[in-house]
Amino acid sequence: MSSTSTEPINDRILTVLPLFYVGWSDSVLSPSELKVIRSVISEMDFLDADDKKYLSSWTDPSNPPPEDVFKGWMKAIKEKSKTLDCSERNSLVELGLKMGTTGVANPKNSDVTRKALKRLEKELCIDNPMSADLLLSKLNKDEDDAGYSTSFSPEGLKDVLDGDYKEVKERMRQLLRDPVFELKHEADKDIYRLRVLEMVKALADQGVSGYSFPKKYGGGERHGDHIAVFEMLAYSDISLTIKFGVQFGLFGGAVYLLGTEVHHRKYLEAMHRAKLLGCFAMTETGHGSNVKGLHTTATYDSATDEIIVHSPNPAAGKEYIGNAIHSEMAAVFAQLIVDGESHGVHAILVPLRDKNGSQLPGIKVEDCGYKMGLNGVDNGRIWFDQVRVPRENLLNKYGDIDAQGKYSSPIKNPSKRFFTMLGALVVGRICVGLGGLSAAKKALTIASRYALHRRQFGPNENGPETFIMDYPSHMERIIPAIARTYAFDFALHDLGEMQVNDDGSDTRKIETLAAGLKSKATWHATHTIQTCREACGGKGYLQENQITDLKADSDIFTTFEGDNTVLMQLVAKGVLTEFKQSFHDDGSLAVIKFLLRKANYKISEYNLLHKRNTDYKHITSFDFIKETFDYRYEKSLIKLSERMRKYLSRKMDPYQAFLKTQVHMIDVADAYIDVITLRSFYHRIQKSPEDMKPILTRLYTLYGLDTIQANKGWLLENEYMEGAKAKAIRKVRTKVIQDLRPDILGLVSAFGIPDELIAAPIAFSDFS
Amino acid sequence: MSSTSTEPINDRILTVLPLFYVGWSDSVLSPSELKVIRSVISEMDFLDADDKKYLSSWTDPSNPPPEDVFKGWMKAIKEKSKTLDCSERNSLVELGLKMGTTGVANPKNSDVTRKALKRLEKELCIDNPMSADLLLSKLNKDEDDAGYSTSFSPEGLKDVLDGDYKEVKERMRQLLRDPVFELKHEADKDIYRLRVLEMVKALADQGVSGYSFPKKYGGGERHGDHIAVFEMLAYSDISLTIKFGVQFGLFGGAVYLLGTEVHHRKYLEAMHRAKLLGCFAMTETGHGSNVKGLHTTATYDSATDEIIVHSPNPAAGKEYIGNAIHSEMAAVFAQLIVDGESHGVHAILVPLRDKNGSQLPGIKVEDCGYKMGLNGVDNGRIWFDQVRVPRENLLNKYGDIDAQGKYSSPIKNPSKRFFTMLGALVVGRICVGLGGLSAAKKALTIASRYALHRRQFGPNENGPETFIMDYPSHMERIIPAIARTYAFDFALHDLGEMQVNDDGSDTRKIETLAAGLKSKATWHATHTIQTCREACGGKGYLQENQITDLKADSDIFTTFEGDNTVLMQLVAKGVLTEFKQSFHDDGSLAVIKFLLRKANYKISEYNLLHKRNTDYKHITSFDFIKETFDYRYEKSLIKLSERMRKYLSRKMDPYQAFLKTQVHMIDVADAYIDVITLRSFYHRIQKSPEDMKPILTRLYTLYGLDTIQANKGWLLENEYMEGAKAKAIRKVRTKVIQDLRPDILGLVSAFGIPDELIAAPIAFSDFS
Repeated sequence: MSSTSTEPINDRILTVLPLFYVGWSDSVLSPSELKVIRSVISEMDFLDADDKKYLSSWTDPSNPPPEDVFKGWMKAIKEKSKTLDCSERNSLVELGLKMGTTGVANPKNSDVTRKALKRLEKELCIDNPMSADLLLSKLNKDEDDAGYSTSFSPEGLKDVLDGDYKEVKERMRQLLRDPVFELKHEADKDIYRLRVLEMVKALADQGVSGYSFPKKYGGGERHGDHIAVFEMLAYSDISLTIKFGVQFGLFGGAVYLLGTEVHHRKYLEAMHRAKLLGCFAMTETGHGSNVKGLHTTATYDSATDEIIVHSPNPAAGKEYIGNAIHSEMAAVFAQLIVDGESHGVHAILVPLRDKNGSQLPGIKVEDCGYKMGLNGVDNGRIWFDQVRVPRENLLNKYGDIDAQGKYSSPIKNPSKRFFTMLGALVVGRICVGLGGLSAAKKALTIASRYALHRRQFGPNENGPETFIMDYPSHMERIIPAIARTYAFDFALHDLGEMQVNDDGSDTRKIETLAAGLKSKATWHATHTIQTCREACGGKGYLQENQITDLKADSDIFTTFEGDNTVLMQLVAKGVLTEFKQSFHDDGSLAVIKFLLRKANYKISEYNLLHKRNTDYKHITSFDFIKETFDYRYEKSLIKLSERMRKYLSRKMDPYQAFLKTQVHMIDVADAYIDVITLRSFYHRIQKSPEDMKPILTRLYTLYGLDTIQANKGWLLENEYMEGAKAKAIRKVRTKVIQDLRPDILGLVSAFGIPDELIAAPIAFSDFS
Repeated sequence: MSSTSTEPINDRILTVLPLFYVGWSDSVLSPSELKVIRSVISEMDFLDADDKKYLSSWTDPSNPPPEDVFKGWMKAIKEKSKTLDCSERNSLVELGLKMGTTGVANPKNSDVTRKALKRLEKELCIDNPMSADLLLSKLNKDEDDAGYSTSFSPEGLKDVLDGDYKEVKERMRQLLRDPVFELKHEADKDIYRLRVLEMVKALADQGVSGYSFPKKYGGGERHGDHIAVFEMLAYSDISLTIKFGVQFGLFGGAVYLLGTEVHHRKYLEAMHRAKLLGCFAMTETGHGSNVKGLHTTATYDSATDEIIVHSPNPAAGKEYIGNAIHSEMAAVFAQLIVDGESHGVHAILVPLRDKNGSQLPGIKVEDCGYKMGLNGVDNGRIWFDQVRVPRENLLNKYGDIDAQGKYSSPIKNPSKRFFTMLGALVVGRICVGLGGLSAAKKALTIASRYALHRRQFGPNENGPETFIMDYPSHMERIIPAIARTYAFDFALHDLGEMQVNDDGSDTRKIETLAAGLKSKATWHATHTIQTCREACGGKGYLQENQITDLKADSDIFTTFEGDNTVLMQLVAKGVLTEFKQSFHDDGSLAVIKFLLRKANYKISEYNLLHKRNTDYKHITSFDFIKETFDYRYEKSLIKLSERMRKYLSRKMDPYQAFLKTQVHMIDVADAYIDVITLRSFYHRIQKSPEDMKPILTRLYTLYGLDTIQANKGWLLENEYMEGAKAKAIRKVRTKVIQDLRPDILGLVSAFGIPDELIAAPIAFSDFS
């Protein structure tokens, strides 16, 4: 409590202060209002000359009370009210009287005083319950956060989110505060790209680019830290995040994971110190999702012991290649042809430019031009015209050509070989999922902070307006998205742990989960950022408030590192693998029958116990939410496999059967990833400190009910529950949302985004 | 049919051509494939030397068949196949044999030929039913549009959309093809703004900016044409659309509709000829949605007979004001104070700059800087420091100050007066709704055309890949959005007609509908453009393909000219007006009771007849769809009013009651606008030419079922139907979507967007 600002305040002044505080809370009092205030003050004879002088000094429209005076008033009221019984709902007038009458003001004058105060209340148009609520709610909290106190420690929740990576995350937060990384709009892409390149080099100088590489090449051998670095980077300029990811994750990852000792020795250290800039040339104009069908060829020429890299047609040009304009070298994915035989897609290191940056012969690079966002990343198209490189440039971990010109591979099946190579790069998908989530967190932080000080409309034409966060429609936009963000955070971090610790036994599962969680998290991010843009109205449309860049930069996340719709089909295929036999083995329906029996058993169980249970406790229980998620997944999986079987048993072409079930596959994948996400959330609660469990449980409940509500139609259609229960879920969900209202600021604070990276002016008012 | 390209083709060659056609359809044949082709050709002894020479000429990988040769093949196959019975499903080999054996090829050799052809088919990896389907589907259509023919005349459907405004729309389409309006990316906002300003002047020179003004001031007095101009402009650069709208719609509209003869004479002609540039200064930093609470003051000073315009605090600055940097004058909305008394918000013309563009004393203008989009529009903030203007500058149609300094108004209630002023500007909301729809149409055109030639994955690793439009998940993204776009188009045009013809009796209804349709149409646009961006993958993220600009430029439509969430509440309030009595008159529940009775009657009727009816004909019937829309609206309205009544009867503060029902209000508004939209669609079908009715009916059915499906949860929860019916609706909806697949190109062509304005390279391949 600042003694300076509250020094002249005594009990007499306190009588009037509630009205003063609320009257000024809109920061504006009209000339006529001020006139009335002055006249009422002069009438109140319990105030002495000094009191009147003090109060009058704050009736100058050109000199409204500055923030510290205003806060001082609040603190004085709060302090005094603690000594009183304020449990009942007081009007502003009654509160003032209570504070005053315990002091020097003469009680017998209280009726006169009350009348004067009431007149003032009326003239200020704050004679309504909302105005009193506004002030009174502040009395029950510790800090000035738009009228609500948080039920938990945001620092504690931040620790839960940071998990085992607190140290590196804090380091990144500190590092990114540096002015080098300041968020600045640069309209010209070429200037912008050079700036981002400098930032990439600055990160390399700090050594944060080498976490995923072996110590013997100067790396950190801390794979989890690499993921954490990427996640934190996405709080800064996302162009930087992506250029960082291209250089160290994709290019570096290709050299490290697809190459062998010879490549590591030659390139790894120069690469992660950003001395050797490279790109990852996989996607072609003609082949994006279906990379197995790439057209670029890499033909071994035994005469010269070289590999000839070639783009046979314009559509075989590499497209959207990040770092294409700045790179010295590319990891080029091409069909490897040895002795006339194709061995499928392999990666070959192809120099693009010399040390002076001049393009080498046979290389054609074209700028992709401006994009929706990420204009700090130099994306380009690359064509190769019979470019010769030494045989050693083949990244040969999964397929090699020996000195005799013979091809060999530890993996015989070319398809399996290619997907093994792709699988080595799965960490990129986890990073993109987390990067999307970081963007969503930042948008939610900005939108929440704005909504906690922005007011619009209100109960009374001239009274203080309502914080926009207090509109139920606004809570609907923001709060469930926060809960879902926590859910995906936990699930992606669990997946990251699984990946970091994988000894090969979980590889397949990790690929399935990475595909699904990347898709669902990035769709969630795109949707959430859009919602936040709209929730901030015109302010959200201005570049200075950051959400537009978050939107533009992260929008591509839904389609890069795998198009989400295609990835969700991969998830479904992964899930269907367990059912594989039943497709091939027409006679035996054992698996299906078993599952159907199991499902029917469960369904009838649900019927009896739960179908009509509208009890609050039941609806918010871990069990009900978990069972509902499981039911949706199992039932939709069984239905999908039945459908597939039916088509295949009619001798339908498998591709046609796939097309016919494609939409259902995506539904199954969606339900599966929901189950996984809920499970991660549940486990995170179990292992969190006791004082964090209540808030986490409320977020879990909201995430659960929100997901159930979103799938209400399907659940009702499948008679999992009755209409009355669906209605009860809606009500409970609304209640859970509204109960989280006081905790919003704490929930977004726990994301731990440095103010320098939030940057948006609208996010700073009461919170700076 | 081009004789040149098909000249050498005879029946012998036709035997092989189906395989050639499909083999080359991926535009690439690998060297080894070509080797096999050459060897098989040389073996086929029914081919003569010329035939072999011709076919061999198209086996050079560096010289693939150009488009016209390729199309010539298709036409020859099509022509020939017409003379045959191709009704049964043929393989490519059988089709070739059929064509060949009717000609000179010796039938007794057909077994040898068949073997050779089958070998070729196998080597080309096109020995699967999909490959044959690809070709065969093309045989049943008139033009080369990715394998499908349209069931209707796109020109005819375009006429339905153009309606009574065909002439002006065609004129605009022609005009906007001019190179002056070429879509060019300009990164620097200041250069971009000047370019857009030149375009605005070019439009004024063409006289298309004066349609909504009286003839005596050089205008056209054709209000409907003004709306049509705006709609067409949104196919061009949307910065131009908005700057045009600000100058001629908002600034011009304020002068014309809020001013009187004196202002018209002085300003109208100069304004619509773009000689006098102006802006519309309503929104303030502190007050956007709640414009009634603006803080800018306009105080009449009787001593000098002037009005003093003043911004009393920083948050009272005008914000986001379009044209702020280029304007000579502003229509400023401010609280009018005459003789110490406030009369609410009025508009006053305030000069900002002199003829040389120098800012006048007391005016402070700040650039809003870069925005998500619309960077060709000069948005700024404006503050006034005791700026004096003559009394005559008050736009005095709804409130005037006479020479004696006395205020008078034809509308006594200040609140009603203000909303009457706002209402005069309702046409802006209709324009914004249609502008959003134009952006959605363009995005759908680009995404559809891309998906009709882009292929990815396929039944066979080396065979032709599948058009992405043929994936059910892709149809789900595109086709329902097309149907919904038609729906909103009809509803907004009906509203436009109502507004143009309004004699005052429909004003209130028009305001409600404009608020609701603007909201739903712009949300639809934002969502659709996002979907199209994702549907085009990485290509959709490149600026050159236009969708990014459509997204960035139109995104603000959901929040400007009224925030959609706020507008939807206005709609609900409009709808609730009918129920007004029941809130005030506690004793009499007559209205409610009547409606409940009516609803119960209807519900039980539905129960008996429809609850379980899963018949295709029933589900696709006009009646079922209409009844379902009506039910949702009526039931939710009744529930809302019951809820409100309950709260109010408990003496809850009306504002609290509003907050508690806010989300339900938005639901009711949504259901109401759906009913209105469906009704417009139905009427449009009725009055359309007979040959257009089938396609319109299919779109109506899809729009209807798609909306029902989206509200399935609510309908099931309220026991309007049973689960089995919901499932049937889902199936029928899917079928309607897939049945529309062949019509997609026709449906987007009917939007009639000139190729010059589509501009996106990905939209031009088979379609240029």
